[in-house]
Amino acid sequence: MTDSRLEHDFLGERAIPNEAYYGIQTLRALENFDITGIPLRTEPLFVQALAYVKKAAALANRELGVLDPNIAEHIALACDKVASGQYDDQFLTDMIQGGAGTSVNMNANEVIANVALELMGHAKGDYQYCHPNNHVNCSQSTNDAYPTAFRIALSNKLVGYAQTLGELADAFAAKGVEFRNVLKMGRTQLQDAVPMSMGDEFKAFATNLREELLRIEDSRRLISEINMGATAIGTRVNAPAGYAELVTEHLRTITALDLSLAGDLIEATYDTGAYVQLSGVLKRTAVKLSKICNDLRLLSSGPRTGINEINLPPLQPGSSIMPGKVNPVVPEVVNQTAFYVIGADLTVTMAAEAGQLQLNVMEPVISFALFTSISYMTRACRTLREKCVVGITANVQHAENLVRNSIGIVTQLNPVLGYEASAEIAKEALLTGKSVHTIAVTERQLLPQAKWDEIFTFENLIRPHFIQ
Amino acid sequence: MTDSRLEHDFLGERAIPNEAYYGIQTLRALENFDITGIPLRTEPLFVQALAYVKKAAALANRELGVLDPNIAEHIALACDKVASGQYDDQFLTDMIQGGAGTSVNMNANEVIANVALELMGHAKGDYQYCHPNNHVNCSQSTNDAYPTAFRIALSNKLVGYAQTLGELADAFAAKGVEFRNVLKMGRTQLQDAVPMSMGDEFKAFATNLREELLRIEDSRRLISEINMGATAIGTRVNAPAGYAELVTEHLRTITALDLSLAGDLIEATYDTGAYVQLSGVLKRTAVKLSKICNDLRLLSSGPRTGINEINLPPLQPGSSIMPGKVNPVVPEVVNQTAFYVIGADLTVTMAAEAGQLQLNVMEPVISFALFTSISYMTRACRTLREKCVVGITANVQHAENLVRNSIGIVTQLNPVLGYEASAEIAKEALLTGKSVHTIAVTERQLLPQAKWDEIFTFENLIRPHFIQ
Amino acid sequence: MTDSRLEHDFLGERAIPNEAYYGIQTLRALENFDITGIPLRTEPLFVQALAYVKKAAALANRELGVLDPNIAEHIALACDKVASGQYDDQFLTDMIQGGAGTSVNMNANEVIANVALELMGHAKGDYQYCHPNNHVNCSQSTNDAYPTAFRIALSNKLVGYAQTLGELADAFAAKGVEFRNVLKMGRTQLQDAVPMSMGDEFKAFATNLREELLRIEDSRRLISEINMGATAIGTRVNAPAGYAELVTEHLRTITALDLSLAGDLIEATYDTGAYVQLSGVLKRTAVKLSKICNDLRLLSSGPRTGINEINLPPLQPGSSIMPGKVNPVVPEVVNQTAFYVIGADLTVTMAAEAGQLQLNVMEPVISFALFTSISYMTRACRTLREKCVVGITANVQHAENLVRNSIGIVTQLNPVLGYEASAEIAKEALLTGKSVHTIAVTERQLLPQAKWDEIFTFENLIRPHFIQ
Amino acid sequence: MTDSRLEHDFLGERAIPNEAYYGIQTLRALENFDITGIPLRTEPLFVQALAYVKKAAALANRELGVLDPNIAEHIALACDKVASGQYDDQFLTDMIQGGAGTSVNMNANEVIANVALELMGHAKGDYQYCHPNNHVNCSQSTNDAYPTAFRIALSNKLVGYAQTLGELADAFAAKGVEFRNVLKMGRTQLQDAVPMSMGDEFKAFATNLREELLRIEDSRRLISEINMGATAIGTRVNAPAGYAELVTEHLRTITALDLSLAGDLIEATYDTGAYVQLSGVLKRTAVKLSKICNDLRLLSSGPRTGINEINLPPLQPGSSIMPGKVNPVVPEVVNQTAFYVIGADLTVTMAAEAGQLQLNVMEPVISFALFTSISYMTRACRTLREKCVVGITANVQHAENLVRNSIGIVTQLNPVLGYEASAEIAKEALLTGKSVHTIAVTERQLLPQAKWDEIFTFENLIRPHFIQ
Repeated sequence: MTDSRLEHDFLGERAIPNEAYYGIQTLRALENFDITGIPLRTEPLFVQALAYVKKAAALANRELGVLDPNIAEHIALACDKVASGQYDDQFLTDMIQGGAGTSVNMNANEVIANVALELMGHAKGDYQYCHPNNHVNCSQSTNDAYPTAFRIALSNKLVGYAQTLGELADAFAAKGVEFRNVLKMGRTQLQDAVPMSMGDEFKAFATNLREELLRIEDSRRLISEINMGATAIGTRVNAPAGYAELVTEHLRTITALDLSLAGDLIEATYDTGAYVQLSGVLKRTAVKLSKICNDLRLLSSGPRTGINEINLPPLQPGSSIMPGKVNPVVPEVVNQTAFYVIGADLTVTMAAEAGQLQLNVMEPVISFALFTSISYMTRACRTLREKCVVGITANVQHAENLVRNSIGIVTQLNPVLGYEASAEIAKEALLTGKSVHTIAVTERQLLPQAKWDEIFTFENLIRPHFIQ
Repeated sequence: MTDSRLEHDFLGERAIPNEAYYGIQTLRALENFDITGIPLRTEPLFVQALAYVKKAAALANRELGVLDPNIAEHIALACDKVASGQYDDQFLTDMIQGGAGTSVNMNANEVIANVALELMGHAKGDYQYCHPNNHVNCSQSTNDAYPTAFRIALSNKLVGYAQTLGELADAFAAKGVEFRNVLKMGRTQLQDAVPMSMGDEFKAFATNLREELLRIEDSRRLISEINMGATAIGTRVNAPAGYAELVTEHLRTITALDLSLAGDLIEATYDTGAYVQLSGVLKRTAVKLSKICNDLRLLSSGPRTGINEINLPPLQPGSSIMPGKVNPVVPEVVNQTAFYVIGADLTVTMAAEAGQLQLNVMEPVISFALFTSISYMTRACRTLREKCVVGITANVQHAENLVRNSIGIVTQLNPVLGYEASAEIAKEALLTGKSVHTIAVTERQLLPQAKWDEIFTFENLIRPHFIQ
Repeated sequence: MTDSRLEHDFLGERAIPNEAYYGIQTLRALENFDITGIPLRTEPLFVQALAYVKKAAALANRELGVLDPNIAEHIALACDKVASGQYDDQFLTDMIQGGAGTSVNMNANEVIANVALELMGHAKGDYQYCHPNNHVNCSQSTNDAYPTAFRIALSNKLVGYAQTLGELADAFAAKGVEFRNVLKMGRTQLQDAVPMSMGDEFKAFATNLREELLRIEDSRRLISEINMGATAIGTRVNAPAGYAELVTEHLRTITALDLSLAGDLIEATYDTGAYVQLSGVLKRTAVKLSKICNDLRLLSSGPRTGINEINLPPLQPGSSIMPGKVNPVVPEVVNQTAFYVIGADLTVTMAAEAGQLQLNVMEPVISFALFTSISYMTRACRTLREKCVVGITANVQHAENLVRNSIGIVTQLNPVLGYEASAEIAKEALLTGKSVHTIAVTERQLLPQAKWDEIFTFENLIRPHFIQ
Repeated sequence: MTDSRLEHDFLGERAIPNEAYYGIQTLRALENFDITGIPLRTEPLFVQALAYVKKAAALANRELGVLDPNIAEHIALACDKVASGQYDDQFLTDMIQGGAGTSVNMNANEVIANVALELMGHAKGDYQYCHPNNHVNCSQSTNDAYPTAFRIALSNKLVGYAQTLGELADAFAAKGVEFRNVLKMGRTQLQDAVPMSMGDEFKAFATNLREELLRIEDSRRLISEINMGATAIGTRVNAPAGYAELVTEHLRTITALDLSLAGDLIEATYDTGAYVQLSGVLKRTAVKLSKICNDLRLLSSGPRTGINEINLPPLQPGSSIMPGKVNPVVPEVVNQTAFYVIGADLTVTMAAEAGQLQLNVMEPVISFALFTSISYMTRACRTLREKCVVGITANVQHAENLVRNSIGIVTQLNPVLGYEASAEIAKEALLTGKSVHTIAVTERQLLPQAKWDEIFTFENLIRPHFIQ
C-alpha cells in the first residue's frame, strides 16, 4: 500500500497523493505558478461554473454519440457534486497563471474525472474509464471551456454585487427623504454657491449609483455571449456538428442564465472586449463611490473648523494621540477600495491589449482582477451602507445658519436687481463682513423688506421658485 | 478714435481690441490659462453647440417672458451666425482651464452678445442693449450651459468617428471575403495551433470592430441626457417655471438630436458618469485596434525570418541605414494612437473622481481628453483603412506550406487516435523534425493513407468537419 | 522653369515643391501620418538636437576618413544654421508617427542635405553632392541618431522646467516666512487635529517641491546616456572603428551636456527605461502639485461656509450666474494639468512595454507624451506662481479663532491629564458645544488656570514645547 | 471564570476573547474593515518593523524620563518577542483600512501592551500597568509610527527582491556567455534587420535588469527618511525635546538600516513621494520584464510556423485539445504579473494624489499595493529564472540559416555599394525570392566573390567590423 498513485502526461510521470482528486497537470501547475498564493478555490462561483460547463459538454457529447452514455452520466453526476462546492479544496492553481487557463481547465477535468471514477467504482487515476482529456474535456478546448466558465461565474457574481450596490443606493435615498427639509448651502468649486435641500443632495447620491445598476446589466448582457464549441481557435475543429448549439442550450438550462452562442467563433475566442467593458463599469462605479465618499468626508469635516453639516457614525477612536478624535474611516476605506479597482482596470486594459492572434493568453490575470474588484466593491458597498450611511445625522441648525450668513444667497436677487448690482453687494459683503441683507435692504435700500421676505422664505431657499 | 473699447466686470476695467467680439472675461481667461496653447476653436463642433444652447435659451426665455423679444431674436440670429462657423476665430480660451468652463461659457456669451449688438445696430460693448450675462446667459449657468453644449458637440463628433470606424470594419470584412480560401496556420500563445482560413481571421477583425459601433451608440444615448435649466447646482434657481423642459424641447429641434432632460438635476449637474463611460468605450476600441495592429505586424513579420503570411503595402523606406527595409508604419502609428487614448482615459478617470459636491470643476480637461481622443482615433482608423488594410495581400503558397509542414495538424487526428497517441506523434515530430504524416502513416502505421487523405483535405483543413 | 523638383527613393519618384528643404521621405511621412496635426517644429529643441547630432556625426566621419572633408564641413555649417532655428518651419512630420522616428531622422537628413547643397552652390535635390542617407546620415541609423537627439532635447527642456519649478517652490517658501506667525488649525483626515503655523504649512509645500529638483537631476543623468554609433541594432554595423566614442566626444562639446556612451549598445538601442523613469518623475511632481492645489482650494474654501483661512487672488468672475463668486481657477487648472500628465505617463508606460526585440518602435509617442508633459507642467508651475501663490493672503484672525474655539487643542492636555481624561473632555465638548477650557478648568477643575495659561500660550500653540 | 475580558475606549465597552493579545481597538477595526480579507500578518516584515518602532520609542522615552523604566523595559522585551514573529497571528486588521493606519498602530500597541503585561506578571487588559496609548504609544502618533514602520518593512523587503532580481539578471548573463557564438538575425519593428550574436541579445537582458538594482537602491535611500517624533502633524506636539533625534538613533541601531530624520517634519508627515517613486521603480522593472518575456515568447514562437530560434523548457502540456503543444507559460505568467504591478502603480498614484492637508489618509492602500507588488515581482523573477531562463536552449543551425537566407545582410554592402544600389538588390530579392548573393555577385556582378567572402565571414556577421 502506498500513499500516492503514479500519473503521466507526455512530459513524464509524477506521483500524486492518493487523497488528491486533482492529477498530474494540476500538480505541474502548482509547481510552475507561485505568484499570488491565492488559489482558484477562493472563487467558488468559478469552480461551480467549470462544473456546469463540463456537465453541459458531457450531456451534449452523449446526445451526439461522441461520449459513452455511462461515462457521460457519471461525469454529469460528478459535476453536480463539484458544483455543490464539496470539492472546492481541490481547486488549487494560482489565480495568476500562464497557459491561458489550461491549468484551471485541467484542474477541473482532473477533479471531475476522479470524482466520476469513484462514482463508477474505480480508483482515482484509472483514467482508461474516464479520462480528463478524452472524456471530461471531450469536444472542448481550454479556449472555449475556460472563458465560458469565467463568464458564467462573473454573471452570477455580479448578481450579488448589484444587489449590494442597490441597497446602498436605497440607503442614500432613505436619507434623501429624511433630510428633505434640511436647508444647507450648495457648493461649487468648494466655494459657497446657492442654497439647497440636504435631502436632494443625498437623493442625488442614490440617483448617481442607481444608474450603475443599468450599466451592470449591460455588462451581464455582453458577457452572456459564449463560445462553447469553438474549441481551439474557433474553427470548431474536433467538435461534432451541432455541438456548439446543443451545449449552449444545455448550459442555458443548467445555469438559468440567458447565454447565447457568439456569431463569430473565431473572434469570440480571442475577444476580451466584454471584460474590458465590465472592468470599465466597475471603474465607473468606483469613481462615483470615491466622489461620494469625498463629499461625505467634506460635509462631515470639523467638528469645529470644517463644514460639519453632517455627522458620520463614530466607529472607532480616530487617533492614538489626539483624544476624542473620530475619523471618517469608512468613506476612507471606500476611497481606497476605489483606487484599487481603478488600478485593476488598468491591469485588465493591459492584459486585453496584449492578446495576440487567435487567443488572449492573459485571461487569467483578467479573471483575477475582475473577481477581486467585484469582491472588494461588494464589501465596500455593504460596509458603506451598514457602517456609515444608515447612521448619518444632520446638524440641522448649523447647516441653516451657514446659509443665512452666506453671501451666496445674493444669487436669488439676480432676477430682481440684475447681475451687476448683485455682484456689487457680494463684493462689499466679502470685504466688510456685513450680511447681504444689511447691504441690500438696510444700507443701499435696493429692495424693500417685504420683497426680501418674499424671496428669502425657507421654502424658497430650499426649493427656489422664480421670482422677478 | 481708439483701437480698443473699455469693458468692466466686478474685478475692474480692461481695454479690449475693437475688432474683438469677445470681451473682458475672455481676455482674463486668455491671461489666466496658458497651458496647452490649444484654443477652443480647434473644436468647431463645440463652438457650434454653444451657439445652439444659447439660441435655445433665448427662444425659451422669450416664450416665458423673461427676455425682451427683440433682444431674444437678435441673440438667436447671432447664434445662427456663430453656429455657421464664421466667428470660430473668436473662441480662444485654452482647452484646459480652471473655472469649470465658465471662461468657455463667457467666451460664447460675449461673442454672441457682440454679434447681436452689431445686428441690432449697436457698437460692440454696448451691453445695456444685449448683455452677455443678463441676456445671452439668461436663465442659465455655466453649470448647465457648458455640459449641455459639450454633450451636443460630443454626440455630433461621434457620428463622424463611428462612420470612419465602420468603414474600417468594412475594409476588414472585404479582406475576409478576398482571403476566404487562403489556408493558414492558427496560432495561440504564439505557438502553432490548428489551421484556419485567413479570410476568417480578417472577418473576425471586422466583427471585433463592428461591436464597437453598438457601444458608441450606447455612449451617445448616455450623453444625450442634459441638464439645461438646472442653473447653478440643479435647484433651478433663477430659471422660470417650465424653462428646463422648454429649452430642452428647443434644443431637440435645433440640434436634431434625441436629447432628454435629466430626471435628477442636482445629480446631473455634477455627474460625469457619461464621460467616463464614453472614454471607456474609446479605450476599449483603442485596445482592440492595438491588438489588431499587433496581429498585422506579426503576420507581416519577415520577410524572410518571420511569419510573412501577409504583405502590408509599402509606404516609405523603412530605414535610414538598412536598404530596402519596409516597416509596418501604419499599424505602428495606430498602436501609438491607442496608447495615447488609453492614457487620456486615465486623465478622464482622475478628473471624474476629483469632482466635489455640487459640480465637477474638472470638466474642461475631460473635454480636452475626449475631443482629442475622438479626433486621433478617427484619423487613425482612416489611416489604417486607406494606407494599410485595403492594400494587404496574402502570401498564399507560403501560408499553406506552413500549415502542411506543421505539427499542429496533429490535432485533427485526436478523434481518431486519441489525445495521448497524438501527443506521442507530436513529440517525435518536434524532436526529429519529421512530418506528422511520416510518423503517423508511414512509420507507426496508426492510420491508413486513405483515412489520412480523408482528414487532411484542403477543405477540411481550412474549415474542419468532425471526422471520427 | 517649374515650381517643383523630382526626387526618388526605392519606392518611386515624387515631386517636391522647390522651396522645400525637406525631400521625398518627409513628403511620404506627411501623407502617411495624420494623427495629431502637431508637427515636429513645435519642439524647436528637438530640431536643434537633431542638428547637433548630425554635426557631431559629420565631424567624426571626417576625422575617421569616411566622409569627404568638404561635404562634412558643409553639413556642419548647415547644422549650425538648422540649430539656430531658421529652418524650424521645414520640420513638419507629425509628432505621433510609425517607423520608430525614421521620418523625423529623414526630415532632418533631407533638410540638412539641402541647406548644405545650397551652401555648396548646388541646387536643392542634387544629392550626388550631399546625400541625405549616404552623407548626412553617414555612420548612423535612425535607431541611434533619433534617441540621441531626443535625449539631448529632453535634457535641455528639463533645464527650463526645473528652473520654473524651483521658482514656484521659492514662492511657497517666501509665503512660509510671511505666514510664520499665523496660528491655524492643522487637519488630518479633514478632521480638526492640532494647531500649527501657517508658515510651516507653506514651507512644507516648498520642501515638497524642492525634492523634485533632485529627481529631475536623476532623470537628466539617466537620459544623458546615449547610443551613437550603435547604428541599426547596437552591433555598430557600418560604423568605422572608434566612431561611437568620437561622435560622443563631439556631441559633449557641441551640446555642453555631460553625455556618455552606453556600455551595452545592444541594450541601449531598445531600452526605454530612462523615459519611463523621467515620466515617473513628471508624474510624481504632478501628484504633488495636485495635492498642493487641493489643499489651496480647501484652505480658501468659503468665503462663509468653508475653511477660509487663506484668500487666493481673484482673477476673474467665477460664475455666469452667481454674482461676486470668485473661484480658485488657477489651482483648478493645475489639477487638470496634473491629470493630463498622469495620463501621459500611462501612455509612456504602454509604449515602453510594447517594445519588441532590438528596437522600441513606439518612441515617437513617448517623445510626444514627454515633451507635452514638460511643456504643460512648466506652464502650470509658472501660472501657479505668478497668478496665485505670490498673491495669497491669510485671514489671520479667523484662522486663530478657529484654533481657539476648537476641541483639537485638547491634545496638548494629554501629557498632563492622560489620553483617557482628555478624551472625556473632547467627547463632552463635542456633544455640548462647550469649550475645552470650560470643561477642563471651570467645570471639572482638572487643572488650574495657571497651568492652562502655561500650556496654551500663542507660542506653545503655534510651535509646541513639551509640557508635562 | 469567563472566556473574555472587558475593554473600553471612549466609544464604549466590548468583550475581548481572553486568549487575544489584541484589544478593543483592534476588535473594532476587524468589524469595520472587511474589504480584502488579507490580514496584516501576511506581511511579517511589517509586524516586525512595528515592534522595532515601539521598542525604539520605549527606549527613547525612558532615557528622556517620560516613561517609567520598568514599563519601558518590559515594552522593549515584548517588542523583541513580537519582532521574532511569535505573535504574528495577533495582527489581523485588513490590509485596506480607513483611519490612516491607526488600526494597524493600535493593533501593535495593544498586542505589545498585553505581551508586556504578561511579562510583568499582570493579566492581559490590566492597562493601568502598561497602557497601549499612554505607554506603548508614548510620544508617538499613528502619523509618525505607522509610516516609519512601513518604510522599515519596505526597505527590508526590497533586499530580498533585489537579490532575486539580481539572480535573474545573472542567469541571463550566463546565457549571454553560453550563446556568444550563436549567429542570429536581429529584428527591428518585427522586420528582419541585421545579424547579431544571440549571446549579446541575452547579455542585453542582463544589462537591462541590472540597471534596476541601482534604481531599487535609490528607492531604499528615499524611504530611509523617517518622521519619528513628528507626532500628529509634524509639530512634535507631546514629544519631549530631543526625542525625535534620539528615537531615530535607536531605530538605526535596532534595524541596522541607514535611517535619517526628515528635515521638515510637517512635510514628511504627509508626503508620499517616496512611495510614488518606489512604485514607479517597480513599474519600470515590470515594464522591462514584460518586454523581455514578450521577446522570449517571440523568439520561441513556432515550432514550425514561427521564429523558433530558442526553446524554452517544457513545463506542462500546453493544451487540453492540441496534443504535444507546449506553451511559454512562464513568460506568460510574468507578463501578467507585470500588468498587475502596473495597475498597482496606478492605485499608488491615485492614493498619493488624494492626500489632503497634514496627512495622507490613503497610506494603507499604498502599503497594500507596494507589499503585494514586491511579493509578486519577487516570485515572478524567481519563477522566470528557475523555470525558464536557466533551461533555454538555442536552435543554433536554424538561427544561422535564417541569417544566411535573409535579405537583411545587404546592409553590410552599404559602405561598399552605397545605400541606393543596396536598396535595389534588396528590392529584387524581395520580389523574386532570390538571395542577395545571387543578385549582387552572380547576376549584377557588383562585387567580386572575394570581397563578398571578406565581408560575410561568420565573425563579421556576428560581430561586424567596418569594411569599405
